[in-house]
Amino acid sequence: MKAIFTYDYGQAKLDAIRALGYEVMVVKESIIENGPEVDDAEILVCYNPFERLDISKMPALKLIILSSMGFDQLPLEEVKHRNILVTNNKGGYSKPIGEWVAMSLLNIYKDTKYFYRRQDDKIWHINTGVWELVGKNILFLGTGSVATEAAKRLQGFEAKVIGMNTDGRAMPYFDECISFDQMMHYVSKVEAVVCALPYNDQMHHLIDERFLGAMKDCAVLINVSRGKLVDEEALVRYLDDGKFMGIALDVFEREPLPKESPLWEFERVYLSPHNSWISEMRNERRFENIFENLKRYSNQAALINLVKL
Amino acid sequence: MKAIFTYDYGQAKLDAIRALGYEVMVVKESIIENGPEVDDAEILVCYNPFERLDISKMPALKLIILSSMGFDQLPLEEVKHRNILVTNNKGGYSKPIGEWVAMSLLNIYKDTKYFYRRQDDKIWHINTGVWELVGKNILFLGTGSVATEAAKRLQGFEAKVIGMNTDGRAMPYFDECISFDQMMHYVSKVEAVVCALPYNDQMHHLIDERFLGAMKDCAVLINVSRGKLVDEEALVRYLDDGKFMGIALDVFEREPLPKESPLWEFERVYLSPHNSWISEMRNERRFENIFENLKRYSNQAALINLVKL
Repeated sequence: MKAIFTYDYGQAKLDAIRALGYEVMVVKESIIENGPEVDDAEILVCYNPFERLDISKMPALKLIILSSMGFDQLPLEEVKHRNILVTNNKGGYSKPIGEWVAMSLLNIYKDTKYFYRRQDDKIWHINTGVWELVGKNILFLGTGSVATEAAKRLQGFEAKVIGMNTDGRAMPYFDECISFDQMMHYVSKVEAVVCALPYNDQMHHLIDERFLGAMKDCAVLINVSRGKLVDEEALVRYLDDGKFMGIALDVFEREPLPKESPLWEFERVYLSPHNSWISEMRNERRFENIFENLKRYSNQAALINLVKL
Repeated sequence: MKAIFTYDYGQAKLDAIRALGYEVMVVKESIIENGPEVDDAEILVCYNPFERLDISKMPALKLIILSSMGFDQLPLEEVKHRNILVTNNKGGYSKPIGEWVAMSLLNIYKDTKYFYRRQDDKIWHINTGVWELVGKNILFLGTGSVATEAAKRLQGFEAKVIGMNTDGRAMPYFDECISFDQMMHYVSKVEAVVCALPYNDQMHHLIDERFLGAMKDCAVLINVSRGKLVDEEALVRYLDDGKFMGIALDVFEREPLPKESPLWEFERVYLSPHNSWISEMRNERRFENIFENLKRYSNQAALINLVKL
C-alpha cells in the first residue's frame, strides 16, 4: 500500500510507518502535483494539497488522513462520490487552542496592548481600566474538543462557562449548556462569546449583523475556528461605531488577511495569523493520530477520528 | 472614634461607616499632612501616607487599616513601639493578580508581542515557535493568597504546579509543596518561577545571581509581589547574555521604574507599572474588608487580616 506524506515527519517516524507494511513517499505540499509517482497512491496524509492536486486523477485513493481538525478544504463531491475515507486530527490541536482562548480573554480584559505600548515609550502609567474574569459569563458556540479544552482551562477563573450545542446536552467543564435555539436569547446576556464551531455552508456568517448587534457594547468576541463563521464587514461597522471591549481573531474570511482589511488597524482587535493551534507538541500529537490510523487501516480495523461528510 | 480615610469610597459607603458610630473624615493621600484635624484620629484607613504624615505626632492612633496587601511601607519602629494594630487587605487583590500570573505565562509562551508587532505592520506571518503549558513545571515562591489564586487558575492547564513555603506543608491547588530548604534544588528543574512572597529584609534579593544562574536557559520568571526580591542588576546581565524565554515584572526595585533601567528595552521582558492588582472590583473588595474590621473594632471583637509585625 502506497502512502504519500506531504509533510516530512523525519526518518524515524516514517520508518515506523514502513514497518507497518506501507510504501512511504514524501512530497511537500508546496510542490506536489499529479504524475505517475503520485497518482497511484492509496493513502494521502496531508493538510491541503487540493489546489495543486486533482484527486480525480488518483484512482487508487481510498483514504485521506488530514493533519488539520477542519476539513472544509476537501474536494467534497469527489470524496463523497467515491466514498473515500477521511480522518482528521480531531483534538490534536485543542489544548494549545484552549490556552489561546484563555489568553485572549485575559489580554482583552487586562488591556495588554496598553502596557506594551507604554513599555516601548518607557512610560510608567498605571491603567485603572483593567477588568477581571470573576463572575463573567462566557458563551462558547460549540462544545467540541476545542471548546472543551478551553472550558477546562477556564474552570479556576470563577467565571460562568456556558456551552451551546445542537440540543443543549450537558458537557463536562461547562457550568451550563444551551441549545442552538436558545443562542440568540443568551447572546445579549453574556460578556464574551467564543466561536469554536466547525464550518459548513449552513453556518456561513452565523455571527452576522443581527448577532453582533445583540451583543453587549462591552462584550468580547473570540474566533478560533473558521473565519467564514463571522461577517467581517458587519463586525468592522460595529467596531467603527465603538462597540466591543475587544475582539480576538485567529481566523478570517480570507487568509492571509488582505492588507486592505480594516481589521488590522483597530487597537482593540487582537489578530493572529491562524496560529492558535501551534505548539512544540504539534508534530508529536499529529503523528500519534496518523500512526494509529495507519496501523488500524493495515489491520482493517475501525479508524479513529473518521469524518462524517 | 475618629477615622481618617485617605481614599474617598463615596457617600453611601462612608455613611455606612458613620452608622457604626465613627466620625469619618476624608483627606486624600496626595495632600495629607499633620495638623489638628488629622493628629487626633484613632484610626487611619490608608495605603501609604507615611512619607507626608508623621504618625509620631498622632498620639491617639491605635489602628491602621491598610488598603494594600504589602505592609513594607509602614514606619515599623513607631508602629511596633506603640503597639498600633495594623490590618491589611489580605486576599483583596489576589484574584486579579492570579489572573495576571496565568496571563503572563501564556503571553510569554505564546510570544504575544510578536503578533502585536506584526499586526502593527500588517504582516501575516505564522510563528511556529510558540509553546504550550501542558506538562510544564511551575514553581511558586510562596503559597499565600496570591499564589493560591494563581494556582487555582492554572489547575486546568495540565501543568505541574509546585508551591514553596517554609516547611513544605501541603496546600490546596498545588500539585506538590516543597520547603524553603529545597528551593535551590528545584529552581534548576522547573520551566517557570513565580515570585509571590511578602518582602522583608531577610528576603532581600532572594532571586540573586546564584538563583538566576541556576534557572534553565529557557525558563520564565514572573514577579508580582515586591521588586526588591529580585536582584535586577543580575537579571539584566543574564538577559544580556540571552538567557530566559521571558520575564514578566509588575514590580521593581525602584518604582516608578527609572527611564535608565535597561529592563524597558528587552523584547522578552513584559513590564507593567505595579498594575496586576487592579480590577473593577478593587474598591468593592477593599471596602468589604475595611467595613468588617471597623465593625469588629467598634464591638471590641478580634480583627481580621491582622498583620504580625
